[in-house]
Amino acid sequence: MPMAANIEQRPVIGLMLGDVTGIGPEISTRLLASGTLKDVARIAVIGDARVFELGCADAGVKPPWRAYEKVSAIDWSRTEIPVVDLRNVDPAKIRRGEMSAESGRLSGDTLKHMIDLALAGEIQGISFAPLNKRALHEGGWKFPDEHQMFAALTKHEGFFGEMNVIKEFATFRVTSHVSLREAVNLVSPQRITAAVRLADATLKANGIANPRIGVAALNPHSGEGGLFGDEEITMIRPTVDELKADGINCTGPISSDVIFVKAVKGEYDGVVMMYHDQGQIATKLLGFNKGVTVTAGLKTVFTTPAHGTAYDIVGKGKADTGALEHALRIAARMASACAKEAGKVK
Amino acid sequence: MPMAANIEQRPVIGLMLGDVTGIGPEISTRLLASGTLKDVARIAVIGDARVFELGCADAGVKPPWRAYEKVSAIDWSRTEIPVVDLRNVDPAKIRRGEMSAESGRLSGDTLKHMIDLALAGEIQGISFAPLNKRALHEGGWKFPDEHQMFAALTKHEGFFGEMNVIKEFATFRVTSHVSLREAVNLVSPQRITAAVRLADATLKANGIANPRIGVAALNPHSGEGGLFGDEEITMIRPTVDELKADGINCTGPISSDVIFVKAVKGEYDGVVMMYHDQGQIATKLLGFNKGVTVTAGLKTVFTTPAHGTAYDIVGKGKADTGALEHALRIAARMASACAKEAGKVK
Repeated sequence: MPMAANIEQRPVIGLMLGDVTGIGPEISTRLLASGTLKDVARIAVIGDARVFELGCADAGVKPPWRAYEKVSAIDWSRTEIPVVDLRNVDPAKIRRGEMSAESGRLSGDTLKHMIDLALAGEIQGISFAPLNKRALHEGGWKFPDEHQMFAALTKHEGFFGEMNVIKEFATFRVTSHVSLREAVNLVSPQRITAAVRLADATLKANGIANPRIGVAALNPHSGEGGLFGDEEITMIRPTVDELKADGINCTGPISSDVIFVKAVKGEYDGVVMMYHDQGQIATKLLGFNKGVTVTAGLKTVFTTPAHGTAYDIVGKGKADTGALEHALRIAARMASACAKEAGKVK
Repeated sequence: MPMAANIEQRPVIGLMLGDVTGIGPEISTRLLASGTLKDVARIAVIGDARVFELGCADAGVKPPWRAYEKVSAIDWSRTEIPVVDLRNVDPAKIRRGEMSAESGRLSGDTLKHMIDLALAGEIQGISFAPLNKRALHEGGWKFPDEHQMFAALTKHEGFFGEMNVIKEFATFRVTSHVSLREAVNLVSPQRITAAVRLADATLKANGIANPRIGVAALNPHSGEGGLFGDEEITMIRPTVDELKADGINCTGPISSDVIFVKAVKGEYDGVVMMYHDQGQIATKLLGFNKGVTVTAGLKTVFTTPAHGTAYDIVGKGKADTGALEHALRIAARMASACAKEAGKVK
């Protein structure tokens, strides 16, 4: 993709420093200090300046930074890292390197604040360093997962979903955080259509002009011609055929134990899976902890590294910034594509 | 394990040359010509001598061999490869490098003959070079899979199952070739118990004194404390606890997307999975085509390379013998363990 010609064309991405108990502040500050994303996005840190300083100390970096009251006040012609200081998290009061419900509550508060900024058009995308999901839940943000939290807070209606990005390909889900029994019941032509269209649109927003999408089977051996279940015959194949006829570059159904072997060889840009573990077994084996999780299909893009808060290495200055950088690049790319799309519509 | 002290103590393993259309004859003859398994088992080729000769030509080997009418006639003090010549497959009449229902029918006939030999006590284990499963089916051996064929032909009653062996670990199944919906319905304390006990016994028969067995969850995130399904709470954990109390070294339930990451790091000798694709997604990504499939739990052990007939390289002399060698070693080991066990009982 062409680089933004001038600073005003680069999307504004809000970066949340992650749970203060974990490695989030450290990887955020080290990455920002490197300046590597300057040409890609205008990144505004949104959180508490004391957490930002803590991250700098963890990372052993001293980048110039400047506190602001609000995003709209940021002077983007200046070179310091802008930190919108919410003054809501005092690191001195939270024990690090372990789960804290209080910290989870504050993480949720900060995310809520950022979502309001996005809805007001002040930021075009949200990236967040690792959160502790149990902390978020115990802190009172009681959603089955953060994607459903974001959908609720952005008042989204309709299909949306988690995209998991690894080096070789990205996965999309027809069903996600439900029991396997319920997943089987939920698989329908409507949901398959929605998931494949979401995959297509999201991969296009990521700069792939004609994404190749593999659609997984539900049953072993793709149902073995109807012998082990008929969803492939009654639902998946007809839906894939319809979507193909409508111009989407999709193929399927493809057996679970074949589709990821093909995907890892580069045959697909995206894999649409019928149930959570179908894709997670594969991506976790293929190094998903270096990957990125995206909430796709909402008006605002949300991205985060797939790895966690890594309590065992907090404050040791050795956490890797690769996945967070990737998460920010995806947020910037998708926010730009979205802005371009909106420009077309106007 | 100690090596068999003398030739009589080595188990007699019947080796079927596989589908004549594929690479089976070539890898069988090349492996036997190498003599590498001489100290492990007494291997009797059971099939057609013309197919054996064809394999030698494919492999470019000329090992000394000797035809016999029946296994009981074999003089094991001789050094030639013994070939029990069934005179049932004329390679001149079958086109190679493609699926042939006629060849499938003959493969089934040969397996049936070998099963009768095993039931009569003339051979202690059966290994077979790659078969074409569709050919077997179209040739009239209409079973959902070969394991069910072997169970039916050996008149087995009770639980049995497929074991898939890769370098790092082996998998066992609570359910197998049924729809995902039926798999969810079939998971029960009885089946979990049977599968874990089968894993334990089979791994012990493979020389692992105290096998470490990981038991997979059924639902995503292991049910997330009952939020996404309760089989982990109502069934899997209590069953695992009971088995542990009974001396089996098992752990679980462990989430699908965690258990294989642990297994590949060496934490388990065996993984018991709830449904077919749970394990197959993982093992196929981890190079299962170099692995071995075992039919476990029947009176006779059956082993075969996990890879197929490889029609694209038939007759080119480049097929690898590694997986077939591994399959024969497992058959020999399990047949020996079984004989030892039988000795104890008497």
